[in-house]
Amino acid sequence: MRKGEQTRAAILDTALDLASRDGLEGLTIGLIADRMQMSKSGVFAHFGSREDLQIAVIQEYHRRFEDEVFLPSLLEDRGLPRLSAMYSGWVTRHTREIDSGCMYISGAVEYDDRPGPIRDELLSMVTAWQKALLRAARQAVGEGHLLADTDCEQLVFEMRAMVLALHHDARFIGDRHAVERIERGYRRLIDSYRAASASTLPRLKLVQVVR
Amino acid sequence: MRKGEQTRAAILDTALDLASRDGLEGLTIGLIADRMQMSKSGVFAHFGSREDLQIAVIQEYHRRFEDEVFLPSLLEDRGLPRLSAMYSGWVTRHTREIDSGCMYISGAVEYDDRPGPIRDELLSMVTAWQKALLRAARQAVGEGHLLADTDCEQLVFEMRAMVLALHHDARFIGDRHAVERIERGYRRLIDSYRAASASTLPRLKLVQVVR
Repeated sequence: MRKGEQTRAAILDTALDLASRDGLEGLTIGLIADRMQMSKSGVFAHFGSREDLQIAVIQEYHRRFEDEVFLPSLLEDRGLPRLSAMYSGWVTRHTREIDSGCMYISGAVEYDDRPGPIRDELLSMVTAWQKALLRAARQAVGEGHLLADTDCEQLVFEMRAMVLALHHDARFIGDRHAVERIERGYRRLIDSYRAASASTLPRLKLVQVVR
Repeated sequence: MRKGEQTRAAILDTALDLASRDGLEGLTIGLIADRMQMSKSGVFAHFGSREDLQIAVIQEYHRRFEDEVFLPSLLEDRGLPRLSAMYSGWVTRHTREIDSGCMYISGAVEYDDRPGPIRDELLSMVTAWQKALLRAARQAVGEGHLLADTDCEQLVFEMRAMVLALHHDARFIGDRHAVERIERGYRRLIDSYRAASASTLPRLKLVQVVR
């Protein structure tokens, strides 16, 4: 990496850290300049505006999410194994970022009544993930792992709902049982749709990180 | 009501409105004085501090929630009818407050990393409702409507999860299908725990309000 690229990556890293703590709206060029011991104009040289920086932060968050959750799941067989790998990776990532919180979830509450480019960017990332889950569920039907009349939208809705509850319970209520509840809920959910011919349900490979 | 009580109630009403729009943290005495065309010291005469006012707002929100959702459910028979009435009322209230958002859910994200009396107050309200749902689920087991080995904590977790998803999808994604998904999910959930001897599943009485 050239020097300029290195500086840009370092700014982005700091910004991601700050946004995880204070929310995307809490992000200011001044705060970053302070943390990086740079001038504000130095930060502006890499990101034209505060909004550009906020959008770059969302994209960087998404890139890491894909690296950690989505890409490894593609190594699993199409169908139920891949769907379960995606869900395991997602839930595991949540348990790992309990302290900072998930930018997609806190961002949804931050921007649900604030239209504009930041909301649009967040929304496109969140719906991309939702579509990837839906595609994997449909492939599980296609592969004969789930019944032909499986309501995939419903399945993905309930999978996503439990992740929202994990975030809520772990961060707000301080209850760590949500991960086990997700395991039980996912098993029940898949079992109710599972084709008789399908092999046993792949277990979720969850790594629970204690705070 | 005496004049003083009327003024206090009017301040609280305005504060509830502002907090629904801008969050509890967005609430300031100055903003309320402005809206009410009162002096700041006039507001302070009724609420000793900004924090007192924030806590009073949470309590007023909870009082209305109980009036609208909890109390009417007590008119239903113990067991599955009451549990379903509580859930119907809760989901209906959500569809009604889509524009302003739910203070319990947005408050959870606002305060999940901010310890203090406001978080404590919110938490006690949220867990009170959670316990009420759990009690109703256990009564449904006691009445023989749900199987004796029903995992009530799991049942309530999944019910709550779908409400979080309704709030997320309706407000952030702008997707209105969540209410139907909740109906389907609740039916599937209850069916999987329902005692063979129980009568047919009470339908959720949902009133969907189109934005």
